Amino acid sequence: MSDQTYEITPTTRAKRLGKRANYDVATVHAILDEALVCHVATTVAGRPRVLPTLHWRIGERLFIHGARKNGIFQALRDGAEASVAVTLMDGLVLARSAFHHSVNYRSVVAFGPFVEITDEGEHRKALEAMIDKIHPGRWGEIRPPNDIEMAQTATMAMDLVEVSAKIRQGPPVDDAADYALPVWAGVVPMISARGNPITDPNTAPPDH
Amino acid sequence: MSDQTYEITPTTRAKRLGKRANYDVATVHAILDEALVCHVATTVAGRPRVLPTLHWRIGERLFIHGARKNGIFQALRDGAEASVAVTLMDGLVLARSAFHHSVNYRSVVAFGPFVEITDEGEHRKALEAMIDKIHPGRWGEIRPPNDIEMAQTATMAMDLVEVSAKIRQGPPVDDAADYALPVWAGVVPMISARGNPITDPNTAPPDH
Repeated sequence: MSDQTYEITPTTRAKRLGKRANYDVATVHAILDEALVCHVATTVAGRPRVLPTLHWRIGERLFIHGARKNGIFQALRDGAEASVAVTLMDGLVLARSAFHHSVNYRSVVAFGPFVEITDEGEHRKALEAMIDKIHPGRWGEIRPPNDIEMAQTATMAMDLVEVSAKIRQGPPVDDAADYALPVWAGVVPMISARGNPITDPNTAPPDH
Repeated sequence: MSDQTYEITPTTRAKRLGKRANYDVATVHAILDEALVCHVATTVAGRPRVLPTLHWRIGERLFIHGARKNGIFQALRDGAEASVAVTLMDGLVLARSAFHHSVNYRSVVAFGPFVEITDEGEHRKALEAMIDKIHPGRWGEIRPPNDIEMAQTATMAMDLVEVSAKIRQGPPVDDAADYALPVWAGVVPMISARGNPITDPNTAPPDH
């Protein structure tokens, strides 16, 4: 994609708090790449459904994958439109008034259908990108999927077309009169990090 | 609620990986209370929409709030059914095969309509619970909402009836033959924590 921003559509146009809206391609990519989990919303048998799942990105496509028999994946394979949200929670914004309490965050919402990746080579390349997002370089170390495993997994991609980011950062914004109140105000950062690895104690499959 | 588990419905019954499903009331409450952000899915003008937003709980009710003019909140106020997901990401599960890579998580999904809290006293009590979830004890220190601020905010509650948790914890579960592979396997914990508070440098509203 050579453009620097996504086209704004009636759905992605910010109706409120327009200063938080962001259509910059690099910004959207960075949020998608930093976050591990997305929430996929769609309609199954007329009811709204939402599924938390891992996501990853290759170029202008957002990928998810799951069991072929999962109800939400079945609906998506049948062409149901989806809305996907990715949310990074950066901090709690403690203002001097209840009303101006807020959250610092970076989020992306994308709309559209998912299509299943049916080409074998493309499917394997997508799974490689997923594993290497979880842990860079890992695809080269592990046993790749066999044909039975490939057949059980549905990998789906959404083109990043109708997409936007929303970002709030920085200190609280209180009403002018409230700055005189004798109360601490500021931001409590939310930290998300990878901890020390815990080696698998098992040398054979555990009972389960 | 005196029962110890939520009733299983056709929507909340686990179709797959039944060992991960959990209908225990205390477990569901603990996940809802630990997580700060939920994702609300609903249908607006026929399209699936998803909104990340703060949530909190009082007894058997899940609360969210937002601007009265927000499109998703308008749909919910008009009675649109919703599906809400709360997801805590606990670790990356690095298996010996690509297929068995997984995520340790605790999630809750709830279904149902939201109703707006219109009683003034109940509305204030709900906002107090929200602020005290963000930072315990803070409601007593800050300026409470005035009537104009109360009128701008829609606070909505969903009764926790059709609700379930899903939990995966512990090391990878690989195929028996794969335990002999010469590759590290285990769990990379994901840490989520509150960092050191950053005091607001402003003594008057910043330009914005």
